[in-house]
Amino acid sequence: MNFSSLSRYLPILQWGRTYNRDALSNDLIAAVIVTIMLVPQSLAYALLAGLPPEAGIYASIVPIMLYAVFGTSRSLAVGPVAVVSLMTAAAIGNIAESGTMGYATAALSLAFLSGVMLLALGLLKLGFIANFLSHPVIAGFITASGILIAGSQIGHILGINLSGHTLPHMIESLFHNISGLNFITLILGVAATVFLFWVRKGLKPLLLSKGLKPRMADILTKAGPVAAVVATTVVTWALGLNDWGVKIVGSVPQSLPPFTMPDLSPTVIGQLFVPALLISIIGFVESISVAQTLAAKKRQRIVPDQELIGLGAANIGAAFTGGYPVTGGFARSVVNFDAGAETPAAGAFTAVGLAIAAVALTPLLYFLPKATLAATIIVAVLSLVDFSILKRSWGYSRQDFFAVATTIALTLLFGVEVGVSAGVGLSVILFLLKTSRPHIAEVGLVAGTEHFRNIRRHTVITDPSLVTIRVDESLYFANARFLEDFIYDRIQPDCGVKNLVLMMSAVNAIDFSALESLEAINERLKANNIKLHMSEVKGPVMDKLQTSHFLHELTGEIFLSQFDAMEKLAPKSTPPAAEAAE
Amino acid sequence: MNFSSLSRYLPILQWGRTYNRDALSNDLIAAVIVTIMLVPQSLAYALLAGLPPEAGIYASIVPIMLYAVFGTSRSLAVGPVAVVSLMTAAAIGNIAESGTMGYATAALSLAFLSGVMLLALGLLKLGFIANFLSHPVIAGFITASGILIAGSQIGHILGINLSGHTLPHMIESLFHNISGLNFITLILGVAATVFLFWVRKGLKPLLLSKGLKPRMADILTKAGPVAAVVATTVVTWALGLNDWGVKIVGSVPQSLPPFTMPDLSPTVIGQLFVPALLISIIGFVESISVAQTLAAKKRQRIVPDQELIGLGAANIGAAFTGGYPVTGGFARSVVNFDAGAETPAAGAFTAVGLAIAAVALTPLLYFLPKATLAATIIVAVLSLVDFSILKRSWGYSRQDFFAVATTIALTLLFGVEVGVSAGVGLSVILFLLKTSRPHIAEVGLVAGTEHFRNIRRHTVITDPSLVTIRVDESLYFANARFLEDFIYDRIQPDCGVKNLVLMMSAVNAIDFSALESLEAINERLKANNIKLHMSEVKGPVMDKLQTSHFLHELTGEIFLSQFDAMEKLAPKSTPPAAEAAE
Repeated sequence: MNFSSLSRYLPILQWGRTYNRDALSNDLIAAVIVTIMLVPQSLAYALLAGLPPEAGIYASIVPIMLYAVFGTSRSLAVGPVAVVSLMTAAAIGNIAESGTMGYATAALSLAFLSGVMLLALGLLKLGFIANFLSHPVIAGFITASGILIAGSQIGHILGINLSGHTLPHMIESLFHNISGLNFITLILGVAATVFLFWVRKGLKPLLLSKGLKPRMADILTKAGPVAAVVATTVVTWALGLNDWGVKIVGSVPQSLPPFTMPDLSPTVIGQLFVPALLISIIGFVESISVAQTLAAKKRQRIVPDQELIGLGAANIGAAFTGGYPVTGGFARSVVNFDAGAETPAAGAFTAVGLAIAAVALTPLLYFLPKATLAATIIVAVLSLVDFSILKRSWGYSRQDFFAVATTIALTLLFGVEVGVSAGVGLSVILFLLKTSRPHIAEVGLVAGTEHFRNIRRHTVITDPSLVTIRVDESLYFANARFLEDFIYDRIQPDCGVKNLVLMMSAVNAIDFSALESLEAINERLKANNIKLHMSEVKGPVMDKLQTSHFLHELTGEIFLSQFDAMEKLAPKSTPPAAEAAE
Repeated sequence: MNFSSLSRYLPILQWGRTYNRDALSNDLIAAVIVTIMLVPQSLAYALLAGLPPEAGIYASIVPIMLYAVFGTSRSLAVGPVAVVSLMTAAAIGNIAESGTMGYATAALSLAFLSGVMLLALGLLKLGFIANFLSHPVIAGFITASGILIAGSQIGHILGINLSGHTLPHMIESLFHNISGLNFITLILGVAATVFLFWVRKGLKPLLLSKGLKPRMADILTKAGPVAAVVATTVVTWALGLNDWGVKIVGSVPQSLPPFTMPDLSPTVIGQLFVPALLISIIGFVESISVAQTLAAKKRQRIVPDQELIGLGAANIGAAFTGGYPVTGGFARSVVNFDAGAETPAAGAFTAVGLAIAAVALTPLLYFLPKATLAATIIVAVLSLVDFSILKRSWGYSRQDFFAVATTIALTLLFGVEVGVSAGVGLSVILFLLKTSRPHIAEVGLVAGTEHFRNIRRHTVITDPSLVTIRVDESLYFANARFLEDFIYDRIQPDCGVKNLVLMMSAVNAIDFSALESLEAINERLKANNIKLHMSEVKGPVMDKLQTSHFLHELTGEIFLSQFDAMEKLAPKSTPPAAEAAE
């Protein structure tokens, strides 16, 4: 393997060679800022996934370093993210009880499976399958997930235990447990939530009005969760609120990421296969959109298939170091970018920062209330909730609206896996249904041009002996019979038609089933003494037709343009004769 | 409900009003001929389905009468057919042991479920879903089913018990049981098979050479199985071959179809839901192709959605009268047509004939060897086996070849349900993959015309400041990103391009995801000082775009024709200027 192909799989060899002191100092500054932001976020997402808090920190260390070696984005920050944490909780909640060893091991297995799948998709260059998630389905899924995530954290704010990964289950659990409400937790949680909302909405304008530079104001705003963590931890410790029923993080092991082994028994793989696939695809879609948005700003290039390899390596790394499924996160990547990160080395330095935090800072987190972490999650995910997609898609396409509304409803009612699968399935089915009943127009010549348009929409020249039909869809098995029926209905016996031209400008492919239908149409028209012609057949379609017998059996001709066809088949109707006749 | 809408659902009201003596005599003659053919065939297919022989006769009586009332084909003969019998055996073989009461009841449940599904599809006008079975998948499935059916009958010819509904299972079972081979059965079976093959291939030419009319020769040929049945029954009875181990049909109840109740417990419905759906669709596809082929010969019209209602009624009838799933059979319908049947009344008379046979003839069938029935099945289904579809599809389209080869292989290896599901799934996936990476051509003007073609295939006029891109596919979620990437790759910074035209003649739809991609492309080009235009946008696509904000944001224009666009944007390159420059 030569250097260029090696560096294709190891992008670090490209940017590493030109790494200099300037880049180093920029990357170090970005790393410090991101580390400060990530400590509370990692703990919170681990909580959301139902895992011990340290799992969130571990999931940010080795994965981020592996991504730095294999990934192509210079700004992407890899680690636990909200939606994937929710999906992890939903997937392994069916296998084991949260808080048990089995639960944590299942999270490792999920990360491993997801990593292997991402790696395989990347090596097989199958990254385009992510395109089958339509924009409305993604938007609907993210919105519904945001609601589920916020809902799942309500319990921590109220100081009660909530269970369930669907809205009905959560509401039912809320009614069952509401009597156990802890008022001190509630006050703490609501205060933290209000504070964080204010930081997000009100602090930045305030800082800007005080004369701070926008970038500095941004960074201070991102440090809001840290302030909330510090303040509530101190209050809880000072007043001994944990004795009053406020749930705290408690002791977190002071350690570097441990070496862990995922459980790869066939039973576990069988149970986690589908969830791992969904997590891989959703994670990849989230990651690649962030990476491409950021890369476009600096005219850098993202290689989707190599991104799969980078994310695959990161997840496999998470599986062996006490983490859980990770991906490129939106919030953390934007902070990394805004803080000036130039290369993936910033990520590696962030990992070092988190490793130091894992060893040195964890005792300080003993009195951190879980309600504070819940507040940071709620405030973060509510920005994901955006119902405007419903309105926008309704205005443009009922079909897209139907897909997004179904995705939202099913995600809320039956959980993330059902929701996203149904969204993808429905999009595909709606697309197929549409192409199975294509728009078919009878066309005529626009006077004074060589252009043909729908006779029902435009004033056009036609000839009674000539019918020209434009099929606005590729011909394939699902619509082959539809075209046959349309033509048989149009061509009644004794209608005076002598020639039928299929205008093929919108036909991008003809599969074997459609070829057989064309043969049948040709035969049937022949029996009625009508010749079948074609015009404007595209190069790739013509190449294929030439490999079949159809062109030999065709009763008519193939015309380069529809105008040629009309000139030849209905010379009296084409200009200048037409103009003379008018 | 007025008469015309009533007669839409009850086609019998249409043909019944003009029924006359001529039609009656033609229908009666056809009925006699079909009845003679159906007696052995019905017994044989019941054997194939693993049911007692009388089930085959019962399945031909009430269903055929109900179809006569509700169906739209004048020639279709409804009853047990080979492929559906095989699918029935495969489906209920998982639930109960062949020969038990549970097995026969499961067959009733399957017929009932299938009937309800067909009825529902018909009432909801969803008949077009059958179009999702591509021609190559159907051909491959029928070929593989023919092999499985023939394989399943080998045991009866050898006089041993064979089990399994897949080729590997059959072969394994053959090796296990071959030692139990019964030589007398083998001689009888082979003789019947050879005789029936000769009848099929050699008898008709012989009769024609003896001066018989072709129609008579045809009918005598179809009576071959009856001759085999009579001859082998007499031999077995005369020599007492059943005492030497030749398996015989034995006592068959002398009775009209009994009233039976299908088992509709949730467990059974759950287990049979998918098989019933597959049987419904496969049965419908087989039936509708036969019906349409025969109707075309007499310029009659088949209404697919009403056919679903007719077949649905027939299957529900089968469920309550001791039958099993039925559909319009190819062989019996062709015989019915050739014998001169004019209306569905021929079917009703056939039912009467079979009812008489059920009451009067069954004792005569006591000594009928099962090997004879197996021979009739083997000879009948081997005509279904046709591997030429592999060659034909390979020549035209690797993709279709792949679908058909996979369907054949999976049907043989894993059975009918896996085979046909995989075939349909694969066709859909291959279609989606193709549309997700569409052909995109850069086009230029063909000199002396207003026609634009691919710059790589034709000598065309272009202008350095103008790039025209023709996308040969509808734009939707699966290919939206692909178009973005293509354009960003084509439009390098400082390439001198001022205008980019998307020629939309092959774009039949733009979904919401693609609209967002177009907005992104428009923005990105704007940042590079390139205007985005469109030409030849179709009516339905334009209607949709007008409901969005996109047209307001579009930096360029919408041109009626690509020629208009070039005239306006690159006037120096368009004729007559172009001709002067040359």
